[in-house]
Amino acid sequence: MTDRLQQQIVFLLEIDKLKQIVRQTYLLDETRKENDAEHSWHFAMFALILAEYAPEPVDILKVIKMALVHDLVEIDAGDTFLYDEAGNANKAEREAKAADRIFALLPQEQGVEMRALWEEFEAKETPDAKFAGAIDRFQPFLHNCNTQGRAWQEHGITADRVLQSNSHISIGAPDLWNRVQELVDEMVSEGYIDAGK
Amino acid sequence: MTDRLQQQIVFLLEIDKLKQIVRQTYLLDETRKENDAEHSWHFAMFALILAEYAPEPVDILKVIKMALVHDLVEIDAGDTFLYDEAGNANKAEREAKAADRIFALLPQEQGVEMRALWEEFEAKETPDAKFAGAIDRFQPFLHNCNTQGRAWQEHGITADRVLQSNSHISIGAPDLWNRVQELVDEMVSEGYIDAGK
Repeated sequence: MTDRLQQQIVFLLEIDKLKQIVRQTYLLDETRKENDAEHSWHFAMFALILAEYAPEPVDILKVIKMALVHDLVEIDAGDTFLYDEAGNANKAEREAKAADRIFALLPQEQGVEMRALWEEFEAKETPDAKFAGAIDRFQPFLHNCNTQGRAWQEHGITADRVLQSNSHISIGAPDLWNRVQELVDEMVSEGYIDAGK
Repeated sequence: MTDRLQQQIVFLLEIDKLKQIVRQTYLLDETRKENDAEHSWHFAMFALILAEYAPEPVDILKVIKMALVHDLVEIDAGDTFLYDEAGNANKAEREAKAADRIFALLPQEQGVEMRALWEEFEAKETPDAKFAGAIDRFQPFLHNCNTQGRAWQEHGITADRVLQSNSHISIGAPDLWNRVQELVDEMVSEGYIDAGK
């Protein structure tokens, strides 16, 4: 076996740990919360099926690659709940350190490519990253709406915070943002979450 | 909301069930078996990182799409263990029926595209499908090798059956097949599995 293949295999076995990083989102049957590997797969499927809602043309291969790698840093840094203000304050620092270790397991040029994908996703500046960022939020949002807002209820999240924290869906996928607003109104009118401010 | 978006969302929520389809492969820390959604994500990552081992040029976007959708039929048909002869005898029939239901949830042209990807993957005739088929096997193979052959031991699978059932890796990724043969020899010499015939 070549050193190159050895490095690739070490990386591919290391990232098995993504299957153990539990998120706040419940599966639709509410038997348990989903993990980052499941979310990454579902995000990639959402991107594939909903690509037409990107307001500018996107490179769907790049968007899907972003979906696949966007949470790898959480192997070291853990999942930070969208509404956890303290956790989000030092998230960038924790994740950059994780990226230093995890992507360096790969052959050099592959590590550089994967890290660049992650950094582009995080920066949310390119059309691909804006769309990917919207889809990354739309998937757990739909899970929450289809489990009577359970994760929101458990953390006391109100409708105004849901809209604020998911607002970049309005940039990356405006037509989906319309649906988000309708669904948040329904969640409030059915009494699953409070309106908030 | 348009009927089209409604259909797409129904499909995307339906496939959440893939996270409940348990496979025979253990996670590397052996705390539990992996599920189809986790495997599909890991398969896509393997394809992305190991694309250079395809013996003919492949369309990596298509290979990754195959990885994402290849197990969706198991939502209805269940996972069939590679070494389950009875289960494999009627697998094609069960899975075709599942495909009829699941892909039909999508808008017509998207359902046709997803079903065509699955059928191409199953047929293993194109370079993309041959490579994808090899990677689909190489991922659980490495898991078994890195858990002292646990799933093989539990089912009494011998080295000759491992090589026979994974032999199409030799077509879809010949350089990885060399590594498979080395690892099977190591598994036998360390006493984790029997050589068989």
